[in-house]
Amino acid sequence: MTRAPLTDQLPGPSPTPTSPVGASVTGVGVLGATGYTGQELLRLLAAHPHVRLLALGSRQQAGQAVADAFPGLGGATGGAWPTRFEDDPAAPDDAAAWRARGIELVFSALPHGAFAARAAAFKAAGITVIDLSADFRPGAEAEWAGRHAGVHPAPELIDEALYGLTEWVDWAPLVGAQRPWLVANPGCYATAILLAALPAAQAGWWSGAPLVVNALSGVSGAGRAASLTTHFVECGGGASPYRVGETHQHRAEIAALLGTHAPGTTGALVFNPHLVPMARGIAANVAIPLSRAVTPEEAEALYAAATAERPFLRLLPTAGGALPETRHVKGSNRCDLALRVVAEGRMLVVFSAIDNLVKGAAGQAVQNMNRLMGWPEDAGLPREAWPCV
Amino acid sequence: MTRAPLTDQLPGPSPTPTSPVGASVTGVGVLGATGYTGQELLRLLAAHPHVRLLALGSRQQAGQAVADAFPGLGGATGGAWPTRFEDDPAAPDDAAAWRARGIELVFSALPHGAFAARAAAFKAAGITVIDLSADFRPGAEAEWAGRHAGVHPAPELIDEALYGLTEWVDWAPLVGAQRPWLVANPGCYATAILLAALPAAQAGWWSGAPLVVNALSGVSGAGRAASLTTHFVECGGGASPYRVGETHQHRAEIAALLGTHAPGTTGALVFNPHLVPMARGIAANVAIPLSRAVTPEEAEALYAAATAERPFLRLLPTAGGALPETRHVKGSNRCDLALRVVAEGRMLVVFSAIDNLVKGAAGQAVQNMNRLMGWPEDAGLPREAWPCV
Amino acid sequence: MTRAPLTDQLPGPSPTPTSPVGASVTGVGVLGATGYTGQELLRLLAAHPHVRLLALGSRQQAGQAVADAFPGLGGATGGAWPTRFEDDPAAPDDAAAWRARGIELVFSALPHGAFAARAAAFKAAGITVIDLSADFRPGAEAEWAGRHAGVHPAPELIDEALYGLTEWVDWAPLVGAQRPWLVANPGCYATAILLAALPAAQAGWWSGAPLVVNALSGVSGAGRAASLTTHFVECGGGASPYRVGETHQHRAEIAALLGTHAPGTTGALVFNPHLVPMARGIAANVAIPLSRAVTPEEAEALYAAATAERPFLRLLPTAGGALPETRHVKGSNRCDLALRVVAEGRMLVVFSAIDNLVKGAAGQAVQNMNRLMGWPEDAGLPREAWPCV
Amino acid sequence: MTRAPLTDQLPGPSPTPTSPVGASVTGVGVLGATGYTGQELLRLLAAHPHVRLLALGSRQQAGQAVADAFPGLGGATGGAWPTRFEDDPAAPDDAAAWRARGIELVFSALPHGAFAARAAAFKAAGITVIDLSADFRPGAEAEWAGRHAGVHPAPELIDEALYGLTEWVDWAPLVGAQRPWLVANPGCYATAILLAALPAAQAGWWSGAPLVVNALSGVSGAGRAASLTTHFVECGGGASPYRVGETHQHRAEIAALLGTHAPGTTGALVFNPHLVPMARGIAANVAIPLSRAVTPEEAEALYAAATAERPFLRLLPTAGGALPETRHVKGSNRCDLALRVVAEGRMLVVFSAIDNLVKGAAGQAVQNMNRLMGWPEDAGLPREAWPCV
Repeated sequence: MTRAPLTDQLPGPSPTPTSPVGASVTGVGVLGATGYTGQELLRLLAAHPHVRLLALGSRQQAGQAVADAFPGLGGATGGAWPTRFEDDPAAPDDAAAWRARGIELVFSALPHGAFAARAAAFKAAGITVIDLSADFRPGAEAEWAGRHAGVHPAPELIDEALYGLTEWVDWAPLVGAQRPWLVANPGCYATAILLAALPAAQAGWWSGAPLVVNALSGVSGAGRAASLTTHFVECGGGASPYRVGETHQHRAEIAALLGTHAPGTTGALVFNPHLVPMARGIAANVAIPLSRAVTPEEAEALYAAATAERPFLRLLPTAGGALPETRHVKGSNRCDLALRVVAEGRMLVVFSAIDNLVKGAAGQAVQNMNRLMGWPEDAGLPREAWPCV
Repeated sequence: MTRAPLTDQLPGPSPTPTSPVGASVTGVGVLGATGYTGQELLRLLAAHPHVRLLALGSRQQAGQAVADAFPGLGGATGGAWPTRFEDDPAAPDDAAAWRARGIELVFSALPHGAFAARAAAFKAAGITVIDLSADFRPGAEAEWAGRHAGVHPAPELIDEALYGLTEWVDWAPLVGAQRPWLVANPGCYATAILLAALPAAQAGWWSGAPLVVNALSGVSGAGRAASLTTHFVECGGGASPYRVGETHQHRAEIAALLGTHAPGTTGALVFNPHLVPMARGIAANVAIPLSRAVTPEEAEALYAAATAERPFLRLLPTAGGALPETRHVKGSNRCDLALRVVAEGRMLVVFSAIDNLVKGAAGQAVQNMNRLMGWPEDAGLPREAWPCV
Repeated sequence: MTRAPLTDQLPGPSPTPTSPVGASVTGVGVLGATGYTGQELLRLLAAHPHVRLLALGSRQQAGQAVADAFPGLGGATGGAWPTRFEDDPAAPDDAAAWRARGIELVFSALPHGAFAARAAAFKAAGITVIDLSADFRPGAEAEWAGRHAGVHPAPELIDEALYGLTEWVDWAPLVGAQRPWLVANPGCYATAILLAALPAAQAGWWSGAPLVVNALSGVSGAGRAASLTTHFVECGGGASPYRVGETHQHRAEIAALLGTHAPGTTGALVFNPHLVPMARGIAANVAIPLSRAVTPEEAEALYAAATAERPFLRLLPTAGGALPETRHVKGSNRCDLALRVVAEGRMLVVFSAIDNLVKGAAGQAVQNMNRLMGWPEDAGLPREAWPCV
Repeated sequence: MTRAPLTDQLPGPSPTPTSPVGASVTGVGVLGATGYTGQELLRLLAAHPHVRLLALGSRQQAGQAVADAFPGLGGATGGAWPTRFEDDPAAPDDAAAWRARGIELVFSALPHGAFAARAAAFKAAGITVIDLSADFRPGAEAEWAGRHAGVHPAPELIDEALYGLTEWVDWAPLVGAQRPWLVANPGCYATAILLAALPAAQAGWWSGAPLVVNALSGVSGAGRAASLTTHFVECGGGASPYRVGETHQHRAEIAALLGTHAPGTTGALVFNPHLVPMARGIAANVAIPLSRAVTPEEAEALYAAATAERPFLRLLPTAGGALPETRHVKGSNRCDLALRVVAEGRMLVVFSAIDNLVKGAAGQAVQNMNRLMGWPEDAGLPREAWPCV
């Protein structure tokens, strides 16, 4: 399936809206609310000035008190969110029932593969959905075939989905009736890597020789399901590359966007992800072979333009020597970026760091909601990181 | 030096004020702002509805941009705090100069021993001080002699200090002209232990046989100064008891408060602190030999009363089996508590968990400010913990 | 079931044998070889001078190459152990088949509850068994009822088992035909706690008032099975008490031994275990109320006698201030001990540290084999810890 | 300074000697024995069959008991090493005094810059030196100028040093009088990277386009000196790139060897090191642009030849999907390698993992000693990793 519509959707950076906050409050629900992304959504949505959190769905913990599932909330419900999880709406009528309760927008934090079959019901019910799984991202059909050994249940909806790498969406035409009902929220690796690579790729700097991407992820990126991989004794004291080269399932998502923004290149992409013993965070770097020699000043100017007036992109000045570190973005929706021009100007290395659960998942999902709804892009989203964790 | 005035100051829990928020905003400064406690004060004060943060002092980083020292802030100063550190006011005239700039209240996060000699100048300048060091806590003179091998520079001010274990201060008489100008903020261990032990001790339950206290602390409790103890390779993969038995320097602080609230007991206290490989948090338990056998129901009733209407104390029900864990209070000002009655009713074990940098330091300091100023006790203070860190 | 025979088995420390190494090599097998304890047994047995490792059983990985299951071995089989796992012998004839292959001694590292039903077959086959589970430890019948909600399958064999807290077994009479065929290897917590408490308890120092035990365990103590408890994100950044007070399943094992060695006391025991974010190690302390005041010198003399000529017990001198730390016993079969006399001589606090997988499991099992076979107690057992891990 | 002699020294792999172990035992000393590398040298040398460890030097801990400095040794000196540290020999006569005591070979684990000025004295005394610092590695003069802002004190000795990347030294001619008196032991990063890159580079596969190297290091690589960088709270929960691109001080060492073995290439090298929260280990990968397309089979054949009969190189088969992980080499002298051919055969990515303190420092130093002395290459060196740490 070609992703032609994507080219239109993603022509490049667009200015942050300066429209005043709407007075209205929107009813919101969450699917799959008990995973790590679900917890993060709860944290952000409970404090969001324009959200009323009306439903928290959970397949496994339906009926359980939220305070028991998340003891860190300290019993503080205070009316800001439901006190109990309810069944994730799976039957066709469930979505309509949610809509009838005033839920206009839903975040799906279900595992990959769980939402696609339900999508049509939500569309029919008139609910806007921000899906944090891979089900409707570029390349979803092929990825589904590989991951689930089967056929994508709703391929006709893939093209309706807006790929929500927020800073790279042209939001201007997406108003009113043109507003998409479905957003495919990017993967955490894809977010860290694309925010680093797209400015150079779009500017035509990339020679087309293989892009070499390395990324280090915290363990929460593997999800909350218990497995030997995430056992403290297995992952707690070491670093492990995995699904390297051309085998990681999200590589297609990255390649698709690069292809869109640098159509003349071959799109060769080597992606080496690593698991490291930290709970949160992704540190990535992209080594971009250049079609012509550039100076550090040119590179800095290009990225300064790409990050200007973006509340959640921060370009660290090369002169200061600072580099993006995961601890400086923990809990924040920021993506920090830094540049190094090497090999006599023939290669640009871009470093990035994000919190995989915030800018890499729940935070960007909220950021997409803000843009969809015409609210300030940073409503309810922290820019500061938590210190000393 | 006797701590007689303390008895009057700490007669037991007092109700949380329900007074409305004052309209005024107070100018605040911080001494020692670049340590871990300083960072935490900045986080809390920058978001506090009644605070204007006017000065950030630092001996070592004076002149440096705050954004460079704390990259996690993401460059987001936004007018909420000064952009640069300035010299910590050390000369006698410095305090008056700060006062002239509108600073009415100062948090001192200087290392132990650094503030005492400056205290008189702040008092003379009419600045209210919340001191997070041990300099003016109960037993300060003896502790100073042991720690600094010298004489406390301002012993006459020790009795003027209010020991700020917030929930155990009788705030009612401390209004207007009776408001203390100096608060000695409790140590992190003392906070976790006293909140666990005082209800039983005050009720006369403690037999006077040795109280056995065990506590596990995160590494940030050792401060930010580089040392072999805090080197990742030394502390990162193991657990270490240290200064156990009757040797820890903060044992006197705990013993003094226990003596005040359980005057008929001998006050024997065994305190075994441990360093464990986590950044933040204290998990403590106090095994209290009882003067008579009690039932679990009696114990739960006693502690339910002591924690009722306290926004930052949470008693976990014995029935559910939950116990205080440090991860559930990270970033929060809460202290979680749980009880176990054992040995056929002859012993009560109380478990507690706090974030050493929040309820154990900066958060409780802000809580004390709130009470001193007549603001809601929880103004600017998070009850929820950060998830997944 | 009374544990009367235990009193005879455990009269107190006995001297380390000085007999020369026997020339013979014994054929050994392992049940449950793929867990953390199984890996540790492989490490120790492969290098043992008197062992030929003939069979590695695994329910789940039968047929798999050992080199694939344990990549850290580096492919180095070198003839020292079998290259593939085989089915754990579960059918009655299996034990006899192992014996026919020359296997005279078996270590069972199966999960609790899996070995008991097979024990009779091994006894019938004439195989000596060192069982690392709780199935035949003191209190096994009651513990089985609680843990497995059923009836212990071989209660008649419990009294035949020697409780293998090596240093507290009187090995002298256990020779030749008197040699037990079954050793119940102590639990990791029990080992750390009993080695700390028994000298004082046996000397009649304990007053009988509740003993307060606190212990910190690494995550490998929870086993290799994937669970939410051991997920890096859940346990990797915090400390958690669990099954505290009088609820931990191994408390009975500790209480039984204390009762045996301090028969006149009531045996009250409060046990607060904690999970902390480290892979290996237990740090424990036992606060012992004393029946009379003692001096630090008396305490040191008592424990010096109890540890003298014990290759794996090390008493740290009180004068130096050092305390047992888990990092100093990682990989070692040592138990480090230190003493503090507090409360004017009325309480003794004993600190201990072990590696839960070595002295707390596989190492002590090998130590027991050494004693059973008349080999030097330290054959094949490391005293030094691994540095910098 | 050109490194022309190196070309002769390093013509490629040479077979492991099969000579029987010499009967002699050599007296050995260590300089800088209290750092992390020093501890590791002690661990390996104390158990080495041909070494008598006669002197442990330490600037800072001279006179201190070894058992106090390294509590993990468990007090077990047993005659295998000196009981106390002595002053590091710094005066010209000191080396001669060591030689007079029977010390024929010295390992210097002093910090970078500390040994160079002493080298001549050791040469004069007739002592063979294996220097673990950067002082005599390729590029030492330039690196010294940058690091120490001064002039290398013994540039005339640099060419006398054998660069000890053991598997890449042609040991055959280095016998008897031709034996070098000085070995420059490679840096830990250089070891992990060169073992990955050299086979392809030497075979002429590298196109000369920039080589992109990423590496993740444990914190022990930063040494034992206390610093903010290694503070648990700073590095314990995150991943940080540092000195990336073309700025790391050891990049020159890597570039020099690549230049030697692939003389026709331009030698462009991008090196992105990262600090990750683990005590030990380096995981590296090298993305090599190829001068012609190769198949996975060709790549595997090339590396199979380069690792054949090398006791400490292990090539993981591509088919199995396994990749080098740091936990599988902890405590071992192995370097694990794996290959991925990508970009339609135009790029080879080689992954490697070592223990930075073993194969990356002390272990390789012992391996070099073994080759210098004609002992089996693996004498006293572990191939197996420690499990579960």
